[in-house]
Amino acid sequence: MASVQDIIVSATVNIISAIIFLVAFAILRLQPFNDRVYFPKWYLKGIRGSPTHSKALVSKFINLDFKTYIRFLNWMPAALRMPEPELIDHAGLDSVVYIRIYLLGLKIFVPIAALAFVVLLPVNWTGETLEKMNVKVKDLTFSDIDKLSISNVPAGSKRFWAHLTMAYVFSFWTCYALYKEYKYIANLRLHFLASEQRRPDQFTVLVRNVPPDPDESVSEHVEHFFCVNHPDHYLSHQIVYNANKLAKLVATKKSMQNWLVYYQTKYEREPTKKPITKTGFWGLYGETVDAIDHYTAEIGRLSEEEAVEREKVISDPNAIIPAAFVSFKSRWGAVICAQTQQTSNPTIWLTEWAPEPRDVYWDNLAIPYVELSVRRLLMAVTLFFLTFFFMIPIAFVQSLANIEGIEKVFPFLKSVIETDVIKSFVQGFLPGIALKIFLILLPTILMTMSKIEGFTALSSLDRRSAAKYHLFLLVNVFLGSIITGTALQQLKTFLNQSATEIPKTVGVSIPMKATFFITYIMVDGWAGIAAEIVRLVPLVMFHLKNTFLVKTEKDREQATDPGSLDFATYEPRIQLYFLLGLVYSVVTPILLPFVIVFFAFAFMVFRHQIINVYDQKYESAASFWPDVHRRIIIGLIISQLLLMGLMSTKKAEHLTPFLIALPILTIWFHLFCKGRFESVFKIFPIQDAMVKDTLERATEPNLNLKAYLQDAYVHPVFKDGEFQRPAAIDEEENSPLVPTKRVSQRESKYGSDEGSENGIVE
Amino acid sequence: MASVQDIIVSATVNIISAIIFLVAFAILRLQPFNDRVYFPKWYLKGIRGSPTHSKALVSKFINLDFKTYIRFLNWMPAALRMPEPELIDHAGLDSVVYIRIYLLGLKIFVPIAALAFVVLLPVNWTGETLEKMNVKVKDLTFSDIDKLSISNVPAGSKRFWAHLTMAYVFSFWTCYALYKEYKYIANLRLHFLASEQRRPDQFTVLVRNVPPDPDESVSEHVEHFFCVNHPDHYLSHQIVYNANKLAKLVATKKSMQNWLVYYQTKYEREPTKKPITKTGFWGLYGETVDAIDHYTAEIGRLSEEEAVEREKVISDPNAIIPAAFVSFKSRWGAVICAQTQQTSNPTIWLTEWAPEPRDVYWDNLAIPYVELSVRRLLMAVTLFFLTFFFMIPIAFVQSLANIEGIEKVFPFLKSVIETDVIKSFVQGFLPGIALKIFLILLPTILMTMSKIEGFTALSSLDRRSAAKYHLFLLVNVFLGSIITGTALQQLKTFLNQSATEIPKTVGVSIPMKATFFITYIMVDGWAGIAAEIVRLVPLVMFHLKNTFLVKTEKDREQATDPGSLDFATYEPRIQLYFLLGLVYSVVTPILLPFVIVFFAFAFMVFRHQIINVYDQKYESAASFWPDVHRRIIIGLIISQLLLMGLMSTKKAEHLTPFLIALPILTIWFHLFCKGRFESVFKIFPIQDAMVKDTLERATEPNLNLKAYLQDAYVHPVFKDGEFQRPAAIDEEENSPLVPTKRVSQRESKYGSDEGSENGIVE
Repeated sequence: MASVQDIIVSATVNIISAIIFLVAFAILRLQPFNDRVYFPKWYLKGIRGSPTHSKALVSKFINLDFKTYIRFLNWMPAALRMPEPELIDHAGLDSVVYIRIYLLGLKIFVPIAALAFVVLLPVNWTGETLEKMNVKVKDLTFSDIDKLSISNVPAGSKRFWAHLTMAYVFSFWTCYALYKEYKYIANLRLHFLASEQRRPDQFTVLVRNVPPDPDESVSEHVEHFFCVNHPDHYLSHQIVYNANKLAKLVATKKSMQNWLVYYQTKYEREPTKKPITKTGFWGLYGETVDAIDHYTAEIGRLSEEEAVEREKVISDPNAIIPAAFVSFKSRWGAVICAQTQQTSNPTIWLTEWAPEPRDVYWDNLAIPYVELSVRRLLMAVTLFFLTFFFMIPIAFVQSLANIEGIEKVFPFLKSVIETDVIKSFVQGFLPGIALKIFLILLPTILMTMSKIEGFTALSSLDRRSAAKYHLFLLVNVFLGSIITGTALQQLKTFLNQSATEIPKTVGVSIPMKATFFITYIMVDGWAGIAAEIVRLVPLVMFHLKNTFLVKTEKDREQATDPGSLDFATYEPRIQLYFLLGLVYSVVTPILLPFVIVFFAFAFMVFRHQIINVYDQKYESAASFWPDVHRRIIIGLIISQLLLMGLMSTKKAEHLTPFLIALPILTIWFHLFCKGRFESVFKIFPIQDAMVKDTLERATEPNLNLKAYLQDAYVHPVFKDGEFQRPAAIDEEENSPLVPTKRVSQRESKYGSDEGSENGIVE
Repeated sequence: MASVQDIIVSATVNIISAIIFLVAFAILRLQPFNDRVYFPKWYLKGIRGSPTHSKALVSKFINLDFKTYIRFLNWMPAALRMPEPELIDHAGLDSVVYIRIYLLGLKIFVPIAALAFVVLLPVNWTGETLEKMNVKVKDLTFSDIDKLSISNVPAGSKRFWAHLTMAYVFSFWTCYALYKEYKYIANLRLHFLASEQRRPDQFTVLVRNVPPDPDESVSEHVEHFFCVNHPDHYLSHQIVYNANKLAKLVATKKSMQNWLVYYQTKYEREPTKKPITKTGFWGLYGETVDAIDHYTAEIGRLSEEEAVEREKVISDPNAIIPAAFVSFKSRWGAVICAQTQQTSNPTIWLTEWAPEPRDVYWDNLAIPYVELSVRRLLMAVTLFFLTFFFMIPIAFVQSLANIEGIEKVFPFLKSVIETDVIKSFVQGFLPGIALKIFLILLPTILMTMSKIEGFTALSSLDRRSAAKYHLFLLVNVFLGSIITGTALQQLKTFLNQSATEIPKTVGVSIPMKATFFITYIMVDGWAGIAAEIVRLVPLVMFHLKNTFLVKTEKDREQATDPGSLDFATYEPRIQLYFLLGLVYSVVTPILLPFVIVFFAFAFMVFRHQIINVYDQKYESAASFWPDVHRRIIIGLIISQLLLMGLMSTKKAEHLTPFLIALPILTIWFHLFCKGRFESVFKIFPIQDAMVKDTLERATEPNLNLKAYLQDAYVHPVFKDGEFQRPAAIDEEENSPLVPTKRVSQRESKYGSDEGSENGIVE
């Protein structure tokens, strides 16, 4: 157990490294040549231009106004200044709600910390168990931190009533804060959706698993189905092409073009030396050729291939996947279609509210129901193995990656490796590297798993990956740190222990791990967040691109990588802090200030980042909040169970019955909140759709909705204007095959009170 | 452990008692005076009249045609003769699907038994473990049954591969049969719903939690809300009165009338002696009065009270509860309203597909969301305590209900009790009576709990009660028989054992309990089902009523109690047989024939009963099937886990990894079926609604739907024609407060292709 001195040393180190990051940030962000790295959002919005040309050449790149360096923390008040409604306009609801998670952390833990310091610290401090033990057993060391924790209370003491009461108070306060926040964010979302501009997804439903029809194409089949079953509301539809191969070709071509530009720039700077490259992978091996010629030829070949593929996709009926975006004449029509089941077979004609066009994950639109079901099973099993058995392959790789192994595979390296410096480096570094690489790759692996599971929107992919990562962190970081040993060993322990024994095993170790987690919070939380704001990787990438690729102002714009809040990685990490705060709030309240500092600091940093840096890839209107809420509840229940376990090892079993009510009430609270709020995040209610429809009808009676929706849901590779709707569909729409319905609609076009009908005026 | 001889004795006893019941049934049912007890369904249908008067007096009551007695089993082929479609017409889909549960049992277990007898019995029989043990330990007894079970296979033997393979084969076969059956019943249900006559619930949605409005009454508020949000589809609505008190008054009055008739009959038969009664509870104490005068006066008083209450309910705005039945112009309109969320607050304007009028449970229509949520929590906790701690109050009552206790409370009984015969009777009988009474009352207690939970349809109440009863039987009968001891002790055992230890503990006892369960199946299954067909209680009740109350043919009709399939009690009991069959299929296959005989016999008995006796209170179109399916899956998973536990105690742990895949695959299969079929049992799809609407529009263009639906959802106490719709509503409908909508509808009445509009031609 670390002493207070150790903690102070660790805190000093981490605070210093945080300050170094902040100073680095303060210096770097003031340099005009870094402007696009630290303020990309403003460039994207068109508010900020490249450094003005009127200034001197030096001041275009380096800030010489030294006064600005003095106030190196002045971004903090600036970050807090923008009011929330304006921030929602500026950065989107997703980002604003994301930073509210940190705010929620402050709301929960500041009062808890205050109360715990007033009530629990004196109770623990005067417990004097550890001092007595120290008298008896000379060897036992304990620190002042442990004297402040529940360990210092004698077993079976009446003092545990204080902890019991506080557990109730803290749980109720947490639930209250959660309820208020859920309600606030539900209202925020409803307000956001209600005040939104007209958007294609409001009128559109994603239809998947269109059953095959021997006589009709997918497009005809969709049209007929919705004409028959939603006769008064169906407007149009957009079929989906399987353009995955085409998209890959386009991406390859773009990368080739980048290389071409790189070599051209190189040649221009050094006209005497013709740049050369090798034809193999990454130019590392193969035949040596003239680089510019090679890439020009490659691009020409790819352009041809692309044109052929483009033609093929549009004309080949097999390239049309059995899914479609169906648009309705009113939001009301779309809302009812999205929420109802179309046919008696619930695995075909699946309708759901369409994601935003930029949120669609095109690759997954065509997966049949049975396959989807099998994929989910496989991924669930994979996740289980990944969580509990990931150490096995890593240990295997580690066993290979030693000096002898390397010498065996690459005998020619023998002489290099045998030198002392490199040898010690390899021996010290290699065993850890496999694990490090795995941990860095983990979010990508989890995202790939979510993609295999077949979700159709980027936002759902992020949410699913976050759930997986949360499980991983819970098992491998939280439990793994408490019960030392791999997850596999934990699993064995848990399987061989009884339901009442597990919380005891974990609960007993909890107070002893407080100092470890305090250090963890400082390293991962404080210094980690400070590193976030420096944006080291985008900084380096931008300057590399700027040097080698950028020729025009447009190139420079493309080189700007604002990045985005990576919900799938960041949110599960926040949950770890909630969990630590809740678990230690009763046990070792001295941990709470560290958590609070993390939340406050992270809140400011991310508020700054979403104002100045990040550009979200999609806007899901905070649809991730139910997940955040649920995970905090999971943390709360874990903390309650562990407290029960801890209490029963402290000879306070008589208190356990009083504690049992807590998790039951918490679960009930969760179900209550779920029933009360969750549907707001999944469903667009009929009343709200009607209000928006009515308003729109009044303000824009002549809106041509069909034209508005025409190309909203076209695959991005067709977005450049080259896409032409196949003639067959246009023709068909002029002479529909279900004439009765369509004719009656046309006849009643005027004189009907259904304003949305105006959408089909052509 | 019972020997084969014991089993044979037990089988003989039970078969004889079953035969006695069957003979009694054969004799009783042929007597014309029992005709209404054994063939009430035909009377209700009007096909069968009272015994013809042309016959002699004696043959009106007793069947003298002795030939008919000889073929005392001839009801069996008769029961099997009616084809299924006709049976659905005759008895309803609920009943037909209910007896298909027994058929499913046969489908699952006959092939499993055949395979188990061919493969597993020889493997077990030649295992010879028990014989060897017998040589070593002289005292150990084992029966031939145990030699046929898995106990006879030596620990760690390769023979377990046979059991492992069979576990897979049996699980796959069970899943296959379940899948086929789910599919068949889903189709049956869809076909049933599609071919159904026009019914009010097809057009109607139950709206609950109508929010209070300061300016409008509930009725106005409902009308305005749906006129605005479903302008083209809303037709009318029916408000709900809180008539619970009135219903109670009507019921009391009816019972008074029965007593009056009873005393009048008595007086007529014995005119010399005026019948008297006491005014207290059940006429047991209180002032002695003339019975006829007393009841006439009471009925008069109640009639007045009833009239006042009736008036009050209709005129008092507070008697209108915030719920309504809203009807739409088409099935399509009702379907979309039932499946969508109306407002952004998901706890108000809750819409669901209305139950059949006779299926509505009126008392629960007005419970607000928060209260409902609290009620569910309380009932969940109660169910837990009821399941695990029910022995505590019963043991307490038992400790009171001994001789000394009775003598203390009722000193005057002392002399009676002290006589030897009564004393021994009391001592032998009383301790068990509390438990017996509890078990008899249990279904009622569970039903009351479901009512408190706030379900609004009788069918959902039945389904919920069945779920509760299933849990109780699982814990207290199945586990309770295996791990002897009360549920409370089991709970303690389980909490103190590890996750891997529990299946071992239970699994090890499984083979030893085979003979016990065989006896259980014979007593509860064979003899119990035979007792069912005799209908002893309705027989006695009918003859009592017939003697004392019946004066006219109409009275006799009322005295006929056809009863109904009590799904909440019967279905969980069947599940016990599924569970036993699945658990023992690998372990002790000799149990399977007993289960098969039960299923076959029960199938025939209940097929006879639904043809001739039962009259269902409601028709839910087999909406209980997902529950049945889920519980069989639960049984399958329990059997797999127990087999894993058993295997690991037989030193065959190396097989456990192969077995782990089974429950995972089974859970996946369940989720797959759930996604594939469950919605068919909850939701009416849009396409089917459209088809029915279109058909109806074509066949009955002039249907006055409004008149048809006018009084469909009136509380049953208003059903006798006395009910008058309050004038206010009629007026309002002629001058609606949302004129634009309504006027536009009227204008487009002709020439619109919306045929359901014809419904409002008045």
